[in-house]
Amino acid sequence: MKVLIVYAHPEPLSLNGSLKNSAVRILQENGHEVVVSDLYQMQWKAAADENDFSSYTPGNRLFYSREAREALANGTLSAAVMTEQEKIRWADTILFVFPLWWFSMPAIMKGWVDRVFSAGFAYGIKQRYGIGNLSGKKVMLMVTTGGMEENYLEKGGINGSMSDLLFHIHHGICWFTGAASLPPFVVYSADRLTEDKYPAVETALEERLLTMDTTPVLPFRYSNSGDYDEKDVLLPHLAAGKQGFALHLREELPLQEMIDTDTAAAIDEQRK
Amino acid sequence: MKVLIVYAHPEPLSLNGSLKNSAVRILQENGHEVVVSDLYQMQWKAAADENDFSSYTPGNRLFYSREAREALANGTLSAAVMTEQEKIRWADTILFVFPLWWFSMPAIMKGWVDRVFSAGFAYGIKQRYGIGNLSGKKVMLMVTTGGMEENYLEKGGINGSMSDLLFHIHHGICWFTGAASLPPFVVYSADRLTEDKYPAVETALEERLLTMDTTPVLPFRYSNSGDYDEKDVLLPHLAAGKQGFALHLREELPLQEMIDTDTAAAIDEQRK
Repeated sequence: MKVLIVYAHPEPLSLNGSLKNSAVRILQENGHEVVVSDLYQMQWKAAADENDFSSYTPGNRLFYSREAREALANGTLSAAVMTEQEKIRWADTILFVFPLWWFSMPAIMKGWVDRVFSAGFAYGIKQRYGIGNLSGKKVMLMVTTGGMEENYLEKGGINGSMSDLLFHIHHGICWFTGAASLPPFVVYSADRLTEDKYPAVETALEERLLTMDTTPVLPFRYSNSGDYDEKDVLLPHLAAGKQGFALHLREELPLQEMIDTDTAAAIDEQRK
Repeated sequence: MKVLIVYAHPEPLSLNGSLKNSAVRILQENGHEVVVSDLYQMQWKAAADENDFSSYTPGNRLFYSREAREALANGTLSAAVMTEQEKIRWADTILFVFPLWWFSMPAIMKGWVDRVFSAGFAYGIKQRYGIGNLSGKKVMLMVTTGGMEENYLEKGGINGSMSDLLFHIHHGICWFTGAASLPPFVVYSADRLTEDKYPAVETALEERLLTMDTTPVLPFRYSNSGDYDEKDVLLPHLAAGKQGFALHLREELPLQEMIDTDTAAAIDEQRK
């Protein structure tokens, strides 16, 4: 595999830093190629603005996505953005390693998405949800939470279920561009993970990383599958009896179960 | 009212810029006090890092939220963060004005939340979901989307429903701190909104802004309501028959309906 790791944590000694280092080591030892974008170390500019385009004429009204589309065509995207896009073109697999802050990515990583997944590069007008420009690539989120796993349970965890909370990333960001997501690798109660428990986490991570080829991806619907009508609304017979984001899964698979089983359970097992 | 407007768009001439300007004008003309945090103009630093604490000792392992809690107590948060927190203490109402990028806030605004809603300031360990430090304040999101309203329909819009997509902000960010959200003011198909249609949008906005006192807030459950057990999992009888984020609404109110009716319908009506 050719793996791009996009990593965001301000502290190299953090659990996230350890997970990133473990992923690099495990993948390389197994013959895979790895490139890391360490966003804090790179001092990644988070704000999408006119400085992303060397072709921008000061004083003109900025239409960001239109400008991005033209800049991509003309080679006038900023060097920083072009470098990241080149890494994505190279990679067949992208790992996002981050702490869940306010139930989403840290701002610096959101800024990587806002700027790098630009119009024309990551998606086109009729190219979205499974058929975008990043089709064929796989993504896996590696996420840590301060909160306990119970807070993220599908049936009533107070934060909302992890699968619903990550939907805006799995479906709205990744699948939008065509990239399919593997079930995320989630480490709950990160603050209470003592050093002696880390080997169990690393073992669980190794198993996940080395089975990415055969692990089923989250089965979101393709935009061109015929499941949606001409206004991109799900056909009524497919929506019957479903609520919320579960509408957009093409199979009767228990999404939360896919998420829960492989990571948390494996870690819990080894913690005992 | 004392209104803080947190605004994020790189282009002052954008629809978002116009909405922000309209909100300021309408509120002031009606005797309300307004303070604006224009994040792009302020060149707001999005990345949460050790520079947020003048008390941080270089070389120490950074535990961000612990450091933030101590810095708040000791008055050693960065001046930029303290200034924003003071605006929040002053305000009884906060408006977030932003384009929906990748189904969430622009990175620069996420970075405002990551840094300003710090541990100890915006929430405490047992203070969350309705009983946080920002209890009593009201929030309203003013959001624009490139996509059509149909793409965000509750029953099968391809992006997921707007109420579910905004849950991580309404519930996960605002309600977490105690602040209750009014139904958002959403302008769909922003790119196709021609200048001659703007007055209708502004009229709809005016009606929303001047009825904030009497508009029901989104009825999320309080963490201390008895609806959740000791592990913060919703009691089974309250979860029966519900799926997804709807579990966390304390009344049988159709959330999407609250969102749809007042904004989009009003605008559509006036567009005719």
